[in-house]
Amino acid sequence: MAQRKLFELCGTDPDRRFSPYCWRIRMALAHKGLDTETIPWRFTQGEAIAFANSKTVPVLIDGDQTVADSWAIAEYLDRAYPDRPALFPGHPASLRFTASWADRVLNAGLAKLIVSDIPGLLGDGEKKYFVESREKRFGMTLEQVTADREAKLPEFRASLQPLRAVLQQQPYVAGDSPDYADYIMFGGFMWARVVSPLQILEESDPLHGWMERMLDLFGGLARGVPARAAA
Amino acid sequence: MAQRKLFELCGTDPDRRFSPYCWRIRMALAHKGLDTETIPWRFTQGEAIAFANSKTVPVLIDGDQTVADSWAIAEYLDRAYPDRPALFPGHPASLRFTASWADRVLNAGLAKLIVSDIPGLLGDGEKKYFVESREKRFGMTLEQVTADREAKLPEFRASLQPLRAVLQQQPYVAGDSPDYADYIMFGGFMWARVVSPLQILEESDPLHGWMERMLDLFGGLARGVPARAAA
Repeated sequence: MAQRKLFELCGTDPDRRFSPYCWRIRMALAHKGLDTETIPWRFTQGEAIAFANSKTVPVLIDGDQTVADSWAIAEYLDRAYPDRPALFPGHPASLRFTASWADRVLNAGLAKLIVSDIPGLLGDGEKKYFVESREKRFGMTLEQVTADREAKLPEFRASLQPLRAVLQQQPYVAGDSPDYADYIMFGGFMWARVVSPLQILEESDPLHGWMERMLDLFGGLARGVPARAAA
Repeated sequence: MAQRKLFELCGTDPDRRFSPYCWRIRMALAHKGLDTETIPWRFTQGEAIAFANSKTVPVLIDGDQTVADSWAIAEYLDRAYPDRPALFPGHPASLRFTASWADRVLNAGLAKLIVSDIPGLLGDGEKKYFVESREKRFGMTLEQVTADREAKLPEFRASLQPLRAVLQQQPYVAGDSPDYADYIMFGGFMWARVVSPLQILEESDPLHGWMERMLDLFGGLARGVPARAAA
């Protein structure tokens, strides 16, 4: 039995892990060099993670420690493994703003472009839960949310300018090498890559080059996951 | 003669230092506990800072060192004074994204609300330079840029949500105490405070509470500067 286990969101295909928050942690564990068994988890399997007092993944079991919530897991990893490469520069609070922007601009913007692609990955029971909960959140059908999405792409891409400008100056969000700031951002783009055929980034975009570097990290860890996009 | 001198932008009134980038450094110097003589500088006084190979302020003279550009100065201060409180968490590149957002969303958004207030602070020669260069940049008169600005405030305030959410979680952008991330953001709001009567933040906004804490730092260093706003 592996000492370390990570519960990660998927749909019918256990290889297509798509949660942006699970991807933050998958990359964080690789950054720390911590071998981890990953366990596929579906929206309808609440009882499987009830032991962690959580209704959502990621959930990490590390020996006798159980930690839920991606932010708490990342903090835990730097605290528990201080001699391995740091995820946070200095202290966790220093990346709160980066995460806040990723949640409210990047991931919220991506959701409006790709959320209607997600039910196609899910089994019947999960699909019912997902569609009902998300339609309630958006106040409209998921097809209405993503209607005319090609036309909305330019405005979304423009909203990424603060991130793009950084990646015109340095190879990673964190500087010369990646840290949790990169995994925070990467989670969103990886989510889109796995669930949607929509091409979010133009190939000429500096963000596209960064994304390619991220996909190459840790022996192509993320690149090995089937992408929905044709490209 | 003080060992340390900072050239800072002002207009006819030498007390009303208003550059967002000079404010970043004024606060950074106080954070490091470095006494510094500040020298008022005007847009027309290019020859006074030519020695630094710079056309803009801030410019810092520190003993035999001369450093121009706010980012370079902040990096210099952490490098030259490593035993004093750090400005950057870990390493400077970690705040590139924060600075990029502040430049492209916060300061660019503020400029569209307040730029027409700036000529009123300037002498005739500076005013001519400022109005011509900024009207060229915006492609319209400064009055056109800020037309209907009260109506544009809700959208601008909404664009601050990623920052606001952080300050609902922790007292400073950097966490429990401020660092350069706070001074980066503060520079923009302080610029608006000194040049414009427009009330940028509602008093109920968590950003307003943070701004009050920032104005109180270092014995009320920034609060002592005359504000243009009535409040």
